[in-house]
Amino acid sequence: MTTGNTPIDLDTTSDEDAYELDRKQVAAILYAVDVEDREKLTELMEPLHAADIADLLEQINPFDRSRLIRLYDREFDGEILSELDESVREEVIAVLKPDVLAEAVRELESDDVVDLVEDLEEPQQEAILDALEDADRIAVEQALAYPENSAGRLMQREVVMAPEHWTVGQAIDFMRDSDDLPEQFYHLILVDPRLHPIGYVTLGKLMGTKREVPLSEIAEEEFQTIPVDQDEEDVAYAFNQYHLISAPVTDDDGRLVGVITIDDAMAVLDEEHEEDILRLAGVAEESSLSDSVADTSKRRLPWLGVNLFTAICASLVISQFEDSISQLVSLAILMPIVASMGGNAGTQSLTVAVRALATRDLTSSNMWRVIRREVMVGVLNGLCFALVLGTIGLMWFGSPMLGVVIGSALVVNMIIAGFAGTVVPIVLDKLGVDPALASGTFVTTTTDVMGFFIFLGLATVVLL
Amino acid sequence: MTTGNTPIDLDTTSDEDAYELDRKQVAAILYAVDVEDREKLTELMEPLHAADIADLLEQINPFDRSRLIRLYDREFDGEILSELDESVREEVIAVLKPDVLAEAVRELESDDVVDLVEDLEEPQQEAILDALEDADRIAVEQALAYPENSAGRLMQREVVMAPEHWTVGQAIDFMRDSDDLPEQFYHLILVDPRLHPIGYVTLGKLMGTKREVPLSEIAEEEFQTIPVDQDEEDVAYAFNQYHLISAPVTDDDGRLVGVITIDDAMAVLDEEHEEDILRLAGVAEESSLSDSVADTSKRRLPWLGVNLFTAICASLVISQFEDSISQLVSLAILMPIVASMGGNAGTQSLTVAVRALATRDLTSSNMWRVIRREVMVGVLNGLCFALVLGTIGLMWFGSPMLGVVIGSALVVNMIIAGFAGTVVPIVLDKLGVDPALASGTFVTTTTDVMGFFIFLGLATVVLL
Repeated sequence: MTTGNTPIDLDTTSDEDAYELDRKQVAAILYAVDVEDREKLTELMEPLHAADIADLLEQINPFDRSRLIRLYDREFDGEILSELDESVREEVIAVLKPDVLAEAVRELESDDVVDLVEDLEEPQQEAILDALEDADRIAVEQALAYPENSAGRLMQREVVMAPEHWTVGQAIDFMRDSDDLPEQFYHLILVDPRLHPIGYVTLGKLMGTKREVPLSEIAEEEFQTIPVDQDEEDVAYAFNQYHLISAPVTDDDGRLVGVITIDDAMAVLDEEHEEDILRLAGVAEESSLSDSVADTSKRRLPWLGVNLFTAICASLVISQFEDSISQLVSLAILMPIVASMGGNAGTQSLTVAVRALATRDLTSSNMWRVIRREVMVGVLNGLCFALVLGTIGLMWFGSPMLGVVIGSALVVNMIIAGFAGTVVPIVLDKLGVDPALASGTFVTTTTDVMGFFIFLGLATVVLL
Repeated sequence: MTTGNTPIDLDTTSDEDAYELDRKQVAAILYAVDVEDREKLTELMEPLHAADIADLLEQINPFDRSRLIRLYDREFDGEILSELDESVREEVIAVLKPDVLAEAVRELESDDVVDLVEDLEEPQQEAILDALEDADRIAVEQALAYPENSAGRLMQREVVMAPEHWTVGQAIDFMRDSDDLPEQFYHLILVDPRLHPIGYVTLGKLMGTKREVPLSEIAEEEFQTIPVDQDEEDVAYAFNQYHLISAPVTDDDGRLVGVITIDDAMAVLDEEHEEDILRLAGVAEESSLSDSVADTSKRRLPWLGVNLFTAICASLVISQFEDSISQLVSLAILMPIVASMGGNAGTQSLTVAVRALATRDLTSSNMWRVIRREVMVGVLNGLCFALVLGTIGLMWFGSPMLGVVIGSALVVNMIIAGFAGTVVPIVLDKLGVDPALASGTFVTTTTDVMGFFIFLGLATVVLL
């Protein structure tokens, strides 16, 4: 029996670094690569989990990476490929010898191969598909026929099922006689004669029940099937919301075609979150830290371009008040405060709204209540900071009216921020646009433009 | 057998709304509450999953909520309490009759009770603990003795284990004779005589193997234990990184004390992500949409206060250039663009860095390479937009030198943005401060202050 406990630093005194690759270990591995000591390298890599080896490959530079792979290639495990970020994966596949690549890929389960090849360029995809045995290749090709990011791509096709009228004993005997049980399965799915899933039994309950008991008696009460063309984001949501461990996938006729397990759903949840976080910051499709400078720069340009456009809009508003500013320079000094506070309050509201839309907590039923709440929060926080800022305006520039103007402008802009921060994501969501991606621009443009306009406009009317 | 397929809208033509509560259903339920039709209400609620009932309760207003609960209380399921957001949960517990509450709580597994009571106020916590049977209460109290957010709080204490020398047959017989197998378990953990876990067998493999085979022969190759005081964030990371389904939890002496399953880890992962997203937007501890205006306002004040302070710092910088601005008002018109572009570029860099720190992809091994990359991206994108902005400056104000000044200031500020956006989160992480929470302030302050300073300073030297 193997107790191959991976020698990862589990020292919990420095919790922040739990599961982080040990720097010394990385140095030792790179040294072995430097001196081309294949034996030492293999020895150092042996205890590492495929996911950690993938992280290691991502963290070293391209030159070391290709040297390491060439030296290590006899041991190269297919799972490492599965774990790699897309950009590094293509590079590694290009470096691997064809026979090593074929060997590595043949070890994988068909759903992992799907995950591996779906983002590859045509020639690399071909190379990998050709390496597979016929049955596996067909399974992968069938999966690839489902739309991208659908349940069909995510599921494994090997399903353990039993007719609903079987007993516990029959089910256990069937499984014991079966040669090709999947590596991982947690439930026995009950089907009717037309292969429609109608319930499931957990393996734990199967274990704990006498042989003569019918399966239907120990089936779980709650049961959820996933349509094969459902978006993987919805699949992940369903797993998280209903605490599913595995769920049968059905085609348009309701027939069982595969099963999705929670570990795949968890990976999707993680990716979707990552995408949301990055999109909220205006990073559209950043795939990883290992992307090149040129790629990264190109990916960040669009949002910065949009921001330049909106910043220029704000400048156009300011330019309408050129005369006021030249008469009273303190306006130029104070105006960024109003815009900045509005932008921050708007970002708070919109982030809460974007999250609530993603978790289905913000719906038509409570939409108006949420908008009202955000506006009220804007009023309260606006009044609070208007007092502070008004006092500062008075003390700094000795003008009570300037204090009143900046305070009033702040209150109005924070109300606008609360309103726009909630309405913009809701409207985008209704229009089918990802609110995480586009809300930020609209909201901060609104708060910038309105902030400058209200403050400078009010100042022009009241002070000049 | 029950095939209680929850009647949730699975229509995938409108993917966005999959698993969202049906508006008509909500209206029907509220109507039943209005006319106090208990029977109709029970009929409408029956098919809903506890998680969906919790969502429903969160989405309706407090008045309807308490009426609904009073009308529904005979059927009230403990799981609904588990699924509720904290703020609504306290309200619901206060509304429930003591005997209904006691009944609801007694149905729950002990780890769910822990999750339920750990955030409650003292008197409510007492009321729930008192409702439990003695054995359960002790289990819950023992779990509460572990530090908050630790593996000890997350684990279930019921573990299915077997001595390493048993055969498959012995294990199955043992489980079949056992009265109190946990509701959910996926692995049989192998232990040595001192109760140290030394491996595990999946139930699937146990099912597919002949009775006489020793367990040690079918144990899994990779095996990972979790220390009982490990932070739950690290636990979630380990499950996601190593594709764990369940993992044994050990005390300081390495003895098995419980087991964590992937569904709990997935819930933690989801919470941590939510926290990161909200913190990046300066929303410290927003717990839900159902929080009151006063609570929400109070929670958002601190970040807005910090932002006010930094905005005033930026204004102080501007005020140093009062004379320049009064001589050349176009400076006031253009200066927000430089600051805004820097702020956006900085936010992009810092979000990527914060995510990479959370996923352990940014480590001491690649830190300098990542910083260099971000600076280079700043140079490239800076040059790109400097050209655009310089041209605009020239055409708008007819001054080539103004174009050169704003272009140069932009390049420098975007380089600063890339540098600060990466270094600030890394330094905060090393200091043990959550980079998601505090990076934003430091980075945007830097880009604002430096943006105004460089642009106005350069303009003063070159143009005036």
